[in-house]
Amino acid sequence: MAQQLREHIEKIIGLTDDEFSCIMDHFSTKKFRKHQFLIQEGEPVKYNYFVLSGLLKLVFTETSGKQHIVAFAMEDWWESDFLAFYTGATATMSLECLEDTEVLRISLNDYHALCKRVPKMERFFLEKATFGFISSQRRILSMLTSNARERYEQLLKQYPKLVQRVPKTQLAAFLGVSRETLSRFSHPM
Amino acid sequence: MAQQLREHIEKIIGLTDDEFSCIMDHFSTKKFRKHQFLIQEGEPVKYNYFVLSGLLKLVFTETSGKQHIVAFAMEDWWESDFLAFYTGATATMSLECLEDTEVLRISLNDYHALCKRVPKMERFFLEKATFGFISSQRRILSMLTSNARERYEQLLKQYPKLVQRVPKTQLAAFLGVSRETLSRFSHPM
Repeated sequence: MAQQLREHIEKIIGLTDDEFSCIMDHFSTKKFRKHQFLIQEGEPVKYNYFVLSGLLKLVFTETSGKQHIVAFAMEDWWESDFLAFYTGATATMSLECLEDTEVLRISLNDYHALCKRVPKMERFFLEKATFGFISSQRRILSMLTSNARERYEQLLKQYPKLVQRVPKTQLAAFLGVSRETLSRFSHPM
Repeated sequence: MAQQLREHIEKIIGLTDDEFSCIMDHFSTKKFRKHQFLIQEGEPVKYNYFVLSGLLKLVFTETSGKQHIVAFAMEDWWESDFLAFYTGATATMSLECLEDTEVLRISLNDYHALCKRVPKMERFFLEKATFGFISSQRRILSMLTSNARERYEQLLKQYPKLVQRVPKTQLAAFLGVSRETLSRFSHPM
């Protein structure tokens, strides 16, 4: 599992064995079962998570009980309630397992300590944050310009493996359509 | 104008005079008139812009001609077509002046050179990218859960000065409602 994180980081910056060993000192591993929560709305958010295996959903729940899926996360993705994680606020969203999931997790203190001890990790996190931002902006654009069927097709093109793995009910909640409407997109005649 | 950028950066990291002088070597200033374009759709995106004074809109235009405003930018905000800027792709959006505008701009080469020469600038850009990402994610959430009137009220609460300055037609295009609908929100009886 250490190797998986190393390969992920080395797509962006080179690392010596010593640097990587120091990086790993700041992470711990944790396993969760399907349906378990990594983050619960209203509670403090202690960690940023790197998914080693499994599948997560980041969910916002309205006071009426209606759920909106803000994001999915699978292998090699980072996920958290980032506002709460970085500011110390309590979570406004929940992070829940759609499959048994194993993660590497890092606390905010360890994140800052890591950036001090291995400064080039700031370049790695900068690249991740930049492309996370770009990806969010593209999603905003897609929400502004595309209907649900087009958004389904964009998702299928961009993340075919994700669409295969995510239960259809969850996919519908992400796209903001009913399960029945999604069936019409995903099983064209 | 140099002082304005320095104060902006020093909200996040401390700088010596030499460091700031080195930073400024990587920027150039440029003035634009109202209605001029900083970025044109279909063209390369040479710069990331820091707004010294004025007001910009980032616009996506559908093939039908329908315009969607993805973002506004005013004093102390950074704006670009970031995907195009960072990847070298051509712009999918335009960046246009809603007022006479003065910017500091930095090219991608200068951005990389700056991060090498003053490595702690990576921490500054990391903080900007992280909170840009968080802000986009909140906007996605707001688009999923709120109607246009609620989104107008959120915008007014978060950026009262922006709402005052942006022409109502542009504000309506940002919220995705007609000019008439916006009038009903902004002039309650």
